[in-house]
Amino acid sequence: MKVIIIGANGKVGRLIAQKMSTSHDFEPTALIRKEEQKEYFDSIGVPSIVESIESQQETIAKAIKGFDAVIFSAGSGGATGADKTIEVDLFGAVKSIEAAKANGISRFVMVGAALSDNPESWQPASMKPYYIAKHLADKELKRSGLDYTILRPVLLTDDEKAGKIRIESDPNLLNNEIPRAAVAETILEVLPNEKTFGKVMEMSAGNLEIKEAIAQFVG
Amino acid sequence: MKVIIIGANGKVGRLIAQKMSTSHDFEPTALIRKEEQKEYFDSIGVPSIVESIESQQETIAKAIKGFDAVIFSAGSGGATGADKTIEVDLFGAVKSIEAAKANGISRFVMVGAALSDNPESWQPASMKPYYIAKHLADKELKRSGLDYTILRPVLLTDDEKAGKIRIESDPNLLNNEIPRAAVAETILEVLPNEKTFGKVMEMSAGNLEIKEAIAQFVG
Repeated sequence: MKVIIIGANGKVGRLIAQKMSTSHDFEPTALIRKEEQKEYFDSIGVPSIVESIESQQETIAKAIKGFDAVIFSAGSGGATGADKTIEVDLFGAVKSIEAAKANGISRFVMVGAALSDNPESWQPASMKPYYIAKHLADKELKRSGLDYTILRPVLLTDDEKAGKIRIESDPNLLNNEIPRAAVAETILEVLPNEKTFGKVMEMSAGNLEIKEAIAQFVG
Repeated sequence: MKVIIIGANGKVGRLIAQKMSTSHDFEPTALIRKEEQKEYFDSIGVPSIVESIESQQETIAKAIKGFDAVIFSAGSGGATGADKTIEVDLFGAVKSIEAAKANGISRFVMVGAALSDNPESWQPASMKPYYIAKHLADKELKRSGLDYTILRPVLLTDDEKAGKIRIESDPNLLNNEIPRAAVAETILEVLPNEKTFGKVMEMSAGNLEIKEAIAQFVG
């Protein structure tokens, strides 16, 4: 499965690329914004394409042509303002979804955010633009006609060990944190799993092995 | 026709309310954000409801219940940042569209922005969040199933006289400015006109009377 990772240079994106590079099931390619970000991906043997998701939709479509699946893991992060949140986290996602459709790429996995369908829980106020962006990006994906899976982790940590997880429909049942490594490993598991198509998985650290948590959630 | 004007206290919104108050075809109500904004609408004999479109969707739905048509003329303006642009211009519009659907209100007229489907023309960079918000709000409306009309004026002026206008599908054919009064009068004209359902009208000052410009555009 040829996979393009949009936002590959983010912390979660790098973990996805790295884990896929040692798997026999995936041929990952990193979509990165800057030439100097290539070095990391060269070092783990993952090819990379330099293109910004702030580019026009047609340009993004050209960049992701020929892949079997898209993983959207891009985000503007906390260091920039709401202008970049709407441009990258939301509009970048919308254009990526349209680009996947235009290329006939049916599989799309989104790294979302826990609680993004729960506006009553959007705290603090400074995070509201981020939640709105994630909420609307997922809304777009859900009616795109693509075979989507949306993973919505809670607060991310840098723990190297993925550990055990919990997947719920109701984010109020979750624990407070989850290692990025667990999100990345979950992505590798759900990507080829048709039972996860059309599912929205709110997730945190928990009591089940990743495979077990997915199997229990999809029923 | 009972009309709720969302964003009624804006410059265009006030003109719409004022023009409707002297018409026999409309019963306008102003949706406003603050109690102290009531005074103007009292003075022109237009009832008002105080509710913020930053509220939850269900709250907005309750506020606009019982109307025959929605006009969305709200915007956060240039004095606040991109956080308010995404919250008001975009998410406020999305919630208003969902609220109209939930209430079975089929008619929805959007005050949009010229060029918002032309990302290659989004200048200056500081305006990009605004254009993205208007682009995505209109995208939402177009697939809502509502009987929508989207008016997309160019740069607005305060000229009291509406004057003549131009309506085009291609915004590159437009002139540079248009009086807010012309936008307001055009809204009163298109609102009951079924031929304008499903139309996106890029508009500026021009050479045709408003009725004539609409008739020519809808064919």
